Amino acid sequence: MATYVMQSLGCEVAALNTVHFSNHLGYGQAKGTRATAQEITDLYTGLKDSGLSAFQMMLSGYLPGAASVEAVGAIARDLKYKATMDPGEFFWVLDPVMGDNGKLYVAEDVPPAYKTLVRDADLILPNQFEAETLSGVKIVDMETLKEAIVTLHQEYRIPHIVVTSISLPALGSQPSLSVVGSTFTRTAEPRIFEIKIPAIDCFFSGTGDMFAALMLVRLREAVYNIEGLMKTKSWVSGDEVEATELPLARACEKVLASMHEVLTRTKVRRDAELEKYKGVNWEGDEKKKRLVESKAAEVRLVRNLDCLRHPEVKFKAERFA
Amino acid sequence: MATYVMQSLGCEVAALNTVHFSNHLGYGQAKGTRATAQEITDLYTGLKDSGLSAFQMMLSGYLPGAASVEAVGAIARDLKYKATMDPGEFFWVLDPVMGDNGKLYVAEDVPPAYKTLVRDADLILPNQFEAETLSGVKIVDMETLKEAIVTLHQEYRIPHIVVTSISLPALGSQPSLSVVGSTFTRTAEPRIFEIKIPAIDCFFSGTGDMFAALMLVRLREAVYNIEGLMKTKSWVSGDEVEATELPLARACEKVLASMHEVLTRTKVRRDAELEKYKGVNWEGDEKKKRLVESKAAEVRLVRNLDCLRHPEVKFKAERFA
Repeated sequence: MATYVMQSLGCEVAALNTVHFSNHLGYGQAKGTRATAQEITDLYTGLKDSGLSAFQMMLSGYLPGAASVEAVGAIARDLKYKATMDPGEFFWVLDPVMGDNGKLYVAEDVPPAYKTLVRDADLILPNQFEAETLSGVKIVDMETLKEAIVTLHQEYRIPHIVVTSISLPALGSQPSLSVVGSTFTRTAEPRIFEIKIPAIDCFFSGTGDMFAALMLVRLREAVYNIEGLMKTKSWVSGDEVEATELPLARACEKVLASMHEVLTRTKVRRDAELEKYKGVNWEGDEKKKRLVESKAAEVRLVRNLDCLRHPEVKFKAERFA
Repeated sequence: MATYVMQSLGCEVAALNTVHFSNHLGYGQAKGTRATAQEITDLYTGLKDSGLSAFQMMLSGYLPGAASVEAVGAIARDLKYKATMDPGEFFWVLDPVMGDNGKLYVAEDVPPAYKTLVRDADLILPNQFEAETLSGVKIVDMETLKEAIVTLHQEYRIPHIVVTSISLPALGSQPSLSVVGSTFTRTAEPRIFEIKIPAIDCFFSGTGDMFAALMLVRLREAVYNIEGLMKTKSWVSGDEVEATELPLARACEKVLASMHEVLTRTKVRRDAELEKYKGVNWEGDEKKKRLVESKAAEVRLVRNLDCLRHPEVKFKAERFA
């Protein structure tokens, strides 16, 4: 998912697969193997040995255990170190994949490993649960959401944060979802914006990877459009820039436009597919039902290339109240 | 390379990686691991278990040893078997990667394994050396080239063959290259066409995979455009169709148009890149030189998406003299 999205938008990608699975885990089952931490390290060494490690950006996603989290951290630090003398020449987008909806789905040693790691990241993309896990702040309203973001900016010194899905009861009775982001100021104060998007009533797999990959490309593009910004450490905008004018906000708007288009089209196709099974009695065959539903909901990406490349922004960043 | 090409042209791809290398072997070195035959088999079993094995086409490429060649053969036969009652519902494009320019670059047990396997393939894409290895016919002129193709059609019952690069001294003094293809008739007679293309004086890696992936997509498209053909076994055109009118010939024309555009652009960028190293004395540093040259010659694919999607046919199929 992530590799194809970045390639479609013009990036030369070196994909270091941390798992080799037959299918995503939405199916409830899969065969395959996990790359060991040593294998991850070896692949990076191979890239370096062959003169292929001049990466401008890195996106890290799902990592199965603390050892591989640490191996990826070591890669990021090595790349960051090489760019020490050239501020802005390396940027790390870290998606701290740990769980969702209050449930951890990685090993218990993964969260502490991420807490060490995120200090070196330029942008992190936690969902609500992951933001809580990293910050130690339970998010129940706007106030605590802000508190979590401030903690991540100030304690962990993370320049850019996007909390990828917030759903708070206080936000109203309509099924709506918010994406909340912030780039800190020179004094590590937050600049928080919010983008409200209509929720789509369906569970899709891989949308986190899609979001992260689009974010990487669109953030670079937004930063590139501002003179000099790519040459500054972590691409942090000057203090005069308002939250809703941040490159991070511009990027988020485009990302969400692409995602909403792709997922809306996916939902239509998924419903048509499931229509074929109308009237089937799945009793005693819950496993089959899950397989059918998972397949029907596979994100329709390759036939919707234009949604990725030419999104039409519909949801604008607003000041966080 | 192959995955991205097929996805860019609208295919939903399940990529079963047979190796996990840091880089291609054009660099003369790489780190990483090979998937075992058991791992290959397991991944396919996982796909089947999750209801994800309704493939219309399969492309098989580089396989590191006889055991993995056999594992992939078993997958193809399983998919073929499922489509027994529905002719044309499964099509296997086999690229028998074994070597080039008279040199084998796989284990010695691989060629015999392929000789067993190709009997089940619908289309094979050998280069000149691989066509010789499979057919047992040394190709030195047009006559022996035809003999090799006839052997593959008649002894191995392979419906479609494209020999991806033929360079015969007899073809003239201009640096030119031919691609020669054939779809057999009902009586297994060859229908041979030839497409002459200008040679580009540069070594690129991955062009075999690019050719194979484009071929898969363009052949399906050409067959789809002829009523009823997709419902016939192995998509073999009726005997009345001339060599130069075959869907295989139509597909080859588009494939070569895309490739010529992408590689011409790559060559320009590669030359500009190498210009930076002009005057460098590589003596005693041949390894470094190879790394620099390999990187400079990496095929520029992601920024040349339009060459893949909208090729302009320049080289037409001709009757084979």
